[in-house]
Amino acid sequence: MMTTHLQVLLESLRKLLRRNAHQRVQHILSKTRSEDIAQVMRYLDEHQRQQLFDLLPNDDVRADTLAELDSHIFVQIVEERPVDQMATVIALMSVDDQANLLSELPDELRGQIIEGMTPDDAQELEEILHYERDTAGGIMSTDFFALPEDTSCAEAIKALQAAEDVEMAFYIYVVSRDMNLCGVVSLRELVINPPERLLSEIQISEVISVRLNYDQEEVAQLAARYNLLALPVVDEHNKLVGIITIDDVIDVIREEATEDILKMAGADESAFEDTSVVSNFTTRAPWLFATWLGGLAASVLIGAFEHHLTKNVALAAFIPIVLGMGGNVGTQTATIMVRGLATGRVEYGLGVQYLFRELGVGALLGLFYGLLLAIYAVVRYYSQEALPLGFTVGVSIWVSMLTAAAVGASTPLMFHRLKIDPAVATGPLVTTSVDVLGILAYFLVAQHFMEL
Amino acid sequence: MMTTHLQVLLESLRKLLRRNAHQRVQHILSKTRSEDIAQVMRYLDEHQRQQLFDLLPNDDVRADTLAELDSHIFVQIVEERPVDQMATVIALMSVDDQANLLSELPDELRGQIIEGMTPDDAQELEEILHYERDTAGGIMSTDFFALPEDTSCAEAIKALQAAEDVEMAFYIYVVSRDMNLCGVVSLRELVINPPERLLSEIQISEVISVRLNYDQEEVAQLAARYNLLALPVVDEHNKLVGIITIDDVIDVIREEATEDILKMAGADESAFEDTSVVSNFTTRAPWLFATWLGGLAASVLIGAFEHHLTKNVALAAFIPIVLGMGGNVGTQTATIMVRGLATGRVEYGLGVQYLFRELGVGALLGLFYGLLLAIYAVVRYYSQEALPLGFTVGVSIWVSMLTAAAVGASTPLMFHRLKIDPAVATGPLVTTSVDVLGILAYFLVAQHFMEL
Repeated sequence: MMTTHLQVLLESLRKLLRRNAHQRVQHILSKTRSEDIAQVMRYLDEHQRQQLFDLLPNDDVRADTLAELDSHIFVQIVEERPVDQMATVIALMSVDDQANLLSELPDELRGQIIEGMTPDDAQELEEILHYERDTAGGIMSTDFFALPEDTSCAEAIKALQAAEDVEMAFYIYVVSRDMNLCGVVSLRELVINPPERLLSEIQISEVISVRLNYDQEEVAQLAARYNLLALPVVDEHNKLVGIITIDDVIDVIREEATEDILKMAGADESAFEDTSVVSNFTTRAPWLFATWLGGLAASVLIGAFEHHLTKNVALAAFIPIVLGMGGNVGTQTATIMVRGLATGRVEYGLGVQYLFRELGVGALLGLFYGLLLAIYAVVRYYSQEALPLGFTVGVSIWVSMLTAAAVGASTPLMFHRLKIDPAVATGPLVTTSVDVLGILAYFLVAQHFMEL
Repeated sequence: MMTTHLQVLLESLRKLLRRNAHQRVQHILSKTRSEDIAQVMRYLDEHQRQQLFDLLPNDDVRADTLAELDSHIFVQIVEERPVDQMATVIALMSVDDQANLLSELPDELRGQIIEGMTPDDAQELEEILHYERDTAGGIMSTDFFALPEDTSCAEAIKALQAAEDVEMAFYIYVVSRDMNLCGVVSLRELVINPPERLLSEIQISEVISVRLNYDQEEVAQLAARYNLLALPVVDEHNKLVGIITIDDVIDVIREEATEDILKMAGADESAFEDTSVVSNFTTRAPWLFATWLGGLAASVLIGAFEHHLTKNVALAAFIPIVLGMGGNVGTQTATIMVRGLATGRVEYGLGVQYLFRELGVGALLGLFYGLLLAIYAVVRYYSQEALPLGFTVGVSIWVSMLTAAAVGASTPLMFHRLKIDPAVATGPLVTTSVDVLGILAYFLVAQHFMEL
């Protein structure tokens, strides 16, 4: 949602950039949040984006703005600029944002930028880059705030006052001498306890933490379930190595939801990142190939039953509705299962229960719509063999919808068990097999009832 | 995702409940987080749920557990218990959770429970219940922490120590004498500033706030965009009336994503809430009616072109693939647009740009798959009028996919402009119109090329 205030900002910036009124642009930018600048840049053309980026008040704001940009705009800006300047600016971003955005750059450019950073910054960043992007290690920040167990509340507050570059500190993690995670103290506890009390006395020692290799989706589910503002990340020896803050968790939740929605339809995030027709064609064409093959199989099947059609051409008229109803129930069922598995609503023993429920719903829907279509067919083709035709279409719809429910419910469960993402694999498989099975059912039923 | 630790917990609770080992159940429950208890209850049968609820250590834990339950389990538990007991327990929940869950109850029972609460609690709750459920007012909490401008940091810390029932206080809102929102101070600022400094001196005065009637989706987008832990809610006079905390924002994001995914497929959240076959049939059948009507229209159209089929029955074989390819492109395009609109990636002027992009992609995909099918058709039916048939199917696929892209892209934009949720309305309309337009295109093209 683009608020009015952003629309006004966008229009004035466009107008001023066109007039080269750079001082006024600078004045506006100095009073604007970097999130808003990043948002507005989405709507500017490339030349305007580069101009605006130059006119930002200082490198801190540049870093904040870069961190909020869509990744393809980030890449665009970085590629057009001197490596030294970008290395300086990027070093000012938090290390998790650095890792996230730099992984979008071509390898060579990324290498050059890391070389341009101070050895310390470069090392910190390379540690993160070394983890898989979609894991806890890949999204964590190493700028966290941890103190030894024997720190007093007063000392902790002093330490907090001295700390600068810390990611949103709401929790103070309490660690042993060798950095093992022992407990957690909220900022509020720190403030409301007497100054001399030790952290070890007020800490909560059952800390929910994640391992470096946890999938980001699991991390997000934990944070959401336990209403946490940050999750500590530990290595295999329970050593605290980083934290994941709630703002990153929100990004993960949004990203994963978008990914699931698009994948079910055979598209992906690049639909929003790359606006060229050709590259969208390239990502989407392969998915449609499954449909194409399915359609081809359907046409071969129909060809095999051609003599039926020659005898009763009315049969052809109901092919689309038999396939359409099956396809839709299949998609409904598959979507419910995929989303249920992704959000943890369908899991651990509930899968089979849902499978049977979906079979029941499919059977009932098939009965209802099959009956409806049978009545229509009998009325419409009253003169010619109406009853057998009615029977055929009615039973076919029922079989097609029941089969679709079975395929739609079992496919995601199967992929989940095989540890393959159900969202990717389900879509094409379900629509294709529902088409082929629907046609087969239709002509077999016709053969039986219509004495063809 | 069900972690091993929850699976173990579930199995032991089941075993102990079966054996009526109530003391041991109580012992386990006293050491378990309420979020985990709520999670485990999802897998128990109703009798076990009630037993477990009775065995919880005290009403505070009961309230915490209730707040985390899926709403249909919440309703189940409340309906089986004395109203007085439930009123006492529910009063211990935060007021936004109260409002959220009570709105699921039948009106009469809700009324009785509110009557059972103290007048203060009841009034606070009724204020929230009076706002629309999906708005800022409907999800906010009125237990927030606000202090006058002339409070010193030391006084603020004291006030914080005295405050008990406050929702996750990370920010201290600074208000004028008549409760107008003036600024915000983070807990961290409070701690790192000298005790005598006034809140008015350290506050950030440009606070991002939301109005009572903001849609919850807008609230979530603001919190995500500006990385906020809480958003203050103000009335039309800028008076602070509540706050929305990040944990509620996360719930909204997850809920809206699930809703969008399911709606696109013609289902809704009830798919996870009510496990009965009949009620799932009832929610899903109406959506399928659009498909049924579309299929019927397709069959009428095919009936109208019956003489074509009689002359060349091979035409029937390609009906499923023409419709299938169109349908899939339509769904891809519609999904990209719906999700883009929901996440704010497609908005304000970008809509038309995306529309043209999608038309381009549809045309290219149609060209590719049309050509592929034309070649197949010519090879397969080499003897009989092969070239005109190849032309017909090739051109039809192209027309069908282009039309589908146009319908899939423009429908969500149109609904968005009309302020109708694109996710609800898009699915059935796109699949149905794509079917009908596809058939029409097919036979018109056939008529033209095949001299039927």
